[in-house]
Amino acid sequence: MPGLASETIGIWVAAGSRDESTETAGSTHFLEHMLFKGTPTKDAKAIAAAFDRTGGDSNAITAKELTCYFSRCLVTDLSDITALLVDMVSNSNLDAEEFERERGVIIEELAMSADDPGDVLFDDFDQLIFGDHPLARPVGATKDQIRVLGHHTLLEHHSTTYVPPRLVIAAAGGATHDEVLGMVEDALAEAGIGSESASHAWDSPAAGRPAAAAGVGDATGGKAHARGAREVPQFHSGRSHTVKDTEQLGILLGCEGLEEGHPDRFVYSVLLTMLGGGMSSRLFQSVREERGLAYAVNCVASQFTDFGTFGIYAGCTPENGQAVVNLALAEWDRLAQEAPSRSEVDAIVSQLSGSMVLGLESSAARMNRLARSEIFGIPLESPLDLIERVRSVTAEQVSTMAGDLMSRPKSLSLVGPQTDLALP
Amino acid sequence: MPGLASETIGIWVAAGSRDESTETAGSTHFLEHMLFKGTPTKDAKAIAAAFDRTGGDSNAITAKELTCYFSRCLVTDLSDITALLVDMVSNSNLDAEEFERERGVIIEELAMSADDPGDVLFDDFDQLIFGDHPLARPVGATKDQIRVLGHHTLLEHHSTTYVPPRLVIAAAGGATHDEVLGMVEDALAEAGIGSESASHAWDSPAAGRPAAAAGVGDATGGKAHARGAREVPQFHSGRSHTVKDTEQLGILLGCEGLEEGHPDRFVYSVLLTMLGGGMSSRLFQSVREERGLAYAVNCVASQFTDFGTFGIYAGCTPENGQAVVNLALAEWDRLAQEAPSRSEVDAIVSQLSGSMVLGLESSAARMNRLARSEIFGIPLESPLDLIERVRSVTAEQVSTMAGDLMSRPKSLSLVGPQTDLALP
Repeated sequence: MPGLASETIGIWVAAGSRDESTETAGSTHFLEHMLFKGTPTKDAKAIAAAFDRTGGDSNAITAKELTCYFSRCLVTDLSDITALLVDMVSNSNLDAEEFERERGVIIEELAMSADDPGDVLFDDFDQLIFGDHPLARPVGATKDQIRVLGHHTLLEHHSTTYVPPRLVIAAAGGATHDEVLGMVEDALAEAGIGSESASHAWDSPAAGRPAAAAGVGDATGGKAHARGAREVPQFHSGRSHTVKDTEQLGILLGCEGLEEGHPDRFVYSVLLTMLGGGMSSRLFQSVREERGLAYAVNCVASQFTDFGTFGIYAGCTPENGQAVVNLALAEWDRLAQEAPSRSEVDAIVSQLSGSMVLGLESSAARMNRLARSEIFGIPLESPLDLIERVRSVTAEQVSTMAGDLMSRPKSLSLVGPQTDLALP
Repeated sequence: MPGLASETIGIWVAAGSRDESTETAGSTHFLEHMLFKGTPTKDAKAIAAAFDRTGGDSNAITAKELTCYFSRCLVTDLSDITALLVDMVSNSNLDAEEFERERGVIIEELAMSADDPGDVLFDDFDQLIFGDHPLARPVGATKDQIRVLGHHTLLEHHSTTYVPPRLVIAAAGGATHDEVLGMVEDALAEAGIGSESASHAWDSPAAGRPAAAAGVGDATGGKAHARGAREVPQFHSGRSHTVKDTEQLGILLGCEGLEEGHPDRFVYSVLLTMLGGGMSSRLFQSVREERGLAYAVNCVASQFTDFGTFGIYAGCTPENGQAVVNLALAEWDRLAQEAPSRSEVDAIVSQLSGSMVLGLESSAARMNRLARSEIFGIPLESPLDLIERVRSVTAEQVSTMAGDLMSRPKSLSLVGPQTDLALP
């Protein structure tokens, strides 16, 4: 991204909470916290100070299939930040005393999440639909699981998962590909790790803006980054209600959707946007604009390597709940029964294209796109090619997919006051 | 911002909930919603579709002193978006039937906010410290106030406040100043409004990146945009506790701080950052890293034209509450008792400078900065000048300010389970 003063760099680990067993539940997220607690040359305070002094956005995130340590900083700070991230990932002390103290912080984080009705709703839904599959567990596990997690579990987790081919470094921003590569190689050398076998790819020149993605330690790209022996989940149909003394009822209604990289993903994008992707979407217009029944109503989708979920989220006072669910199902069904007009599809194509081009201005978004492409083995297409793929989606395809989804078993999760809400 | 494909444009109204009386409470926020509900040439659906088809981020926000309608879109869509925003602000139908329907949406929005313990905490704190001053009221008012708000109140509100000199248009991005000005003038002409008396300023050339701010209808800049006859608030010391069945206790402890544009604002920035502005801050290190007592702990500040508040926020399980409050006060006092080292100040200067330069890459952040400068009458200084001002802050100034704040009457708001927590 020539001319940009900043760069976003991320070190990704193709491992998440789904790779844990019941015994090691919560260790991926706990490990992410521990990497900030010290290396042989820097204690926790020095690590925090080294990130903060750049004035950038530095943090880490753990998800069900991925962990990422990232920083958006000025290109002039990139060399220091790269060395810091590589040091953290490679040489963390994982000190036992720090581990005990951090247990308290993680329990506080889980308590904070338990007080957020939206977090509870999405966790409940996954618990409902995934049965006893590891994807059912919340990323951070439960407070009870964290209370008994052993220090040795983290050490094992680190030594078995923070290794090639699971590690990917991705970057986007003002630095050139060669500059980033040089910094990464220097950082690896400093951390005592060879980089002879590192592979590296970069963003399509058709995009007009170079960016770097280096898969460290393995010349094979794509799905080789993910664990091979993962058990494919099955969708469980059912219903859950966490009773909470809230004013609104949180509603999440969904079914099996499309996994990451599915060949029909462009049809899926159009469907998600048309049904519930903006203020002109069918759900927003029907539920909020025409009837004033909710403030927030939209489609949601989560995508894993081998599974996806499709859903409709709404938050409303309990007395509006049944009407909102009925309308949501009616709009979903209307799309299944009748293909949208070409002009409605064209509006969505325009929306998705504009959003894609606007997204190119963010080094963080581009770094993410690079890394996910590398990890999930999805070809990195130029924005123009992507727009072309969206443009080729037909109204019939959208309607057919809506019908296909509608025919699948559904699950419903509720969080809030007790209600008699029923699926028709 | 030459070369950028996007532009962020905002139409600002220098009016917010503090300009309401008890009788008109909630009308500013309600009006913001109504502007999306239709003009003589576009109904609500057409307005939503016109925003969505750009793929941009378009929305509006109401605060206690400001209202803003904004969009980040591609420069190629800017002309259409400018015309749309001007049409909404100038020619809204404010239809009585739409008004009744939107009442439900706003009540849902307030219910959603009531279920967010953080929102409740910050609203409680303002209610506590501002007594019967209009700043005490939450921006959206209460559900009961919204239930009885009359349609005529909105009409009056619109005709009296959506007029010069309260209106400011600000923009930043890939379009030139003259291009934006031309689009605004065309949009005003289309809306039947003359622009003869519009004033316009632009970002300092020293910043190396032009951007546009046009104050519509009044050649006087600065505080002339705000209402003159606002009553200056007084700080009320006290304590509040909203009992909620949550796992965490939300804690907000604060005193009177510095208002917007205060001459000592650079010292204030250093203080806020050093005490509670990042993961290396004193509060984060003491409360979270060294003792593991909380996940989130940081300084907060709100700034109005004539008043500011300074506070410390923390969320933790109730049994940690007293220890967190004691530590927060101890760290605050330690800064007051002893000036920090020059190297600690230098680290904060580096953090604030980096953050400022990184912020220049966002057209939304730059549009905001322009508008606030114009509305609050704060000189628009170049980033280099701002960095120079931060650099000139001394350790003694920071310590003296910490002591000055510490000597002021304090208030404490809590949201969560009942506790015996006390201020020492």
